[in-house]
Amino acid sequence: MSILAIGTVAFDSIETPFGSADYILGGSATYITLAARYFTDDLGLVGVVGGDFPEAHLNLFRARGIGLEGLEIDADGKTFFWAGKYHYDLNDRDTLTTDLNVLATFEPKVPDARKDARIVCLGNLEPGIQRSVVAQAADPDFVICDTMNFWIENTPNSLVETLKVIDCLIINDAEARELADEPNLFKAARAIQAMGPRILVIKKGEHGALLFAEGEIFAVPAYPLEDIFDPTGAGDTFMGGFAGYLARVQRYDVAALRSAVVVGSAMASFCVEKFGPERLYDLDKQAINDRIQAFHTLTVIPSVEAL
Amino acid sequence: MSILAIGTVAFDSIETPFGSADYILGGSATYITLAARYFTDDLGLVGVVGGDFPEAHLNLFRARGIGLEGLEIDADGKTFFWAGKYHYDLNDRDTLTTDLNVLATFEPKVPDARKDARIVCLGNLEPGIQRSVVAQAADPDFVICDTMNFWIENTPNSLVETLKVIDCLIINDAEARELADEPNLFKAARAIQAMGPRILVIKKGEHGALLFAEGEIFAVPAYPLEDIFDPTGAGDTFMGGFAGYLARVQRYDVAALRSAVVVGSAMASFCVEKFGPERLYDLDKQAINDRIQAFHTLTVIPSVEAL
Repeated sequence: MSILAIGTVAFDSIETPFGSADYILGGSATYITLAARYFTDDLGLVGVVGGDFPEAHLNLFRARGIGLEGLEIDADGKTFFWAGKYHYDLNDRDTLTTDLNVLATFEPKVPDARKDARIVCLGNLEPGIQRSVVAQAADPDFVICDTMNFWIENTPNSLVETLKVIDCLIINDAEARELADEPNLFKAARAIQAMGPRILVIKKGEHGALLFAEGEIFAVPAYPLEDIFDPTGAGDTFMGGFAGYLARVQRYDVAALRSAVVVGSAMASFCVEKFGPERLYDLDKQAINDRIQAFHTLTVIPSVEAL
Repeated sequence: MSILAIGTVAFDSIETPFGSADYILGGSATYITLAARYFTDDLGLVGVVGGDFPEAHLNLFRARGIGLEGLEIDADGKTFFWAGKYHYDLNDRDTLTTDLNVLATFEPKVPDARKDARIVCLGNLEPGIQRSVVAQAADPDFVICDTMNFWIENTPNSLVETLKVIDCLIINDAEARELADEPNLFKAARAIQAMGPRILVIKKGEHGALLFAEGEIFAVPAYPLEDIFDPTGAGDTFMGGFAGYLARVQRYDVAALRSAVVVGSAMASFCVEKFGPERLYDLDKQAINDRIQAFHTLTVIPSVEAL
């Protein structure tokens, strides 16, 4: 099944307590597609880069079956650049630099050949841009959307409109509380679902993720990692694994969604093991299967003797 | 199977954003025994109260089959008093008052009839006092211990000695990180197990709990609650449900321990639904069974299609 992913393609400079990396490949669409490609061979990316974006990076996508017909190359512009610094707890980060560059005037155009994608992934971007992609797509089965505190605070009305045209919102716990203006996460979830998305995934970093769908709640822990080198892109990687699994099974029922949350969590757990998206480049299929299986071992409750 | 629980029996004054309560029944041994009593009818409490402790409270324990032979009543003293205030996120609290009163000179004596208890629960107390109870017991099968940041910081050497004579430590995530001096929770767990306890449970409040046993990690989420009125005693209630379930099934293997973590989590989820221990007084057996069953629904991962 086909997936269309829109988001940023970027250069990132990242500093963590365990090291740093300069001007490496980054961006939400990068992580989404690099994770999703293990689960589908019909995958297109919509985004923009500048003339400074190296051919080697383009080839990295192409070699992994990621269609770049929708990647605009603005030869006179510079690629979006983000620099950030993580502290010891890795749950919080400081943004040091955000140079929008070619992203400042970005108007995404979905190539004709990609308009019939069944699943659309809206990486974190201005909500109006996200909506314009949904409008260009030809009645997709399933639209998945990310957002962030910046849009919640600065473009709330536009975000509310976007929430009406999506099937599934994936955000983190702080964003959920802020979006719903409600400290209790379960009340916040109910309020957000009332805004539009019938499916909601709340990511909680080292504490795992929650799925709200069809009146059920599903909780999955994060994979236990003793060494987390770089959390950058983990949320986007989650979305890529989540969407990829749905494309693979071609179902959106609550059982498929639960499994997709586990797959997203597994892919995210690989992402953080190295700097940037590097760990996602050439994962072994067996390693992915084993990581997914480990979530069963991690969570299975033996039968409990009733009183 | 028999359980002996030592800890505080107290008056608590509690303020939360949802209300307040003055001089209500509290203390770690109170919550432990009120939760454990649903699972065993051979349950003794060791602690101390003052002459101000009302007969009605004593009868509350007695009516629920909790043996008070080990509860010392210091007629000239006053009962331990704690006052605390919770803020909106309910994960953190300020201690407003701690009046040790009769607790200041407490030297626990385990009654002869309770010395052969198979499971010993050491509620949060000075580590040397906890050790003295283990020394008085007649070779119990399973010793479970709680502690807190105060003892980690102020009596580290004594705490290290106590960790050598217990089977299972139950602490929260901040305490685990502090005890091991390690920000990564999984590395911290390994370091703590190397100090003595072969089994470790790390409580993470709204994010659930982790069990480390026999080289396995088990993660269980917290029960989803839209209204948490008062978190006081939730951790002690967890220990009571955990120990109670082990006493009921008379096994300490990793499957029994996983189930016991779920039972502890279920009991804790009841505790926070009302102020103080009130919700634990007269729970319906079916309500407990249903709450435990809900953890299966909350966590079950459908089969995931392998790549």
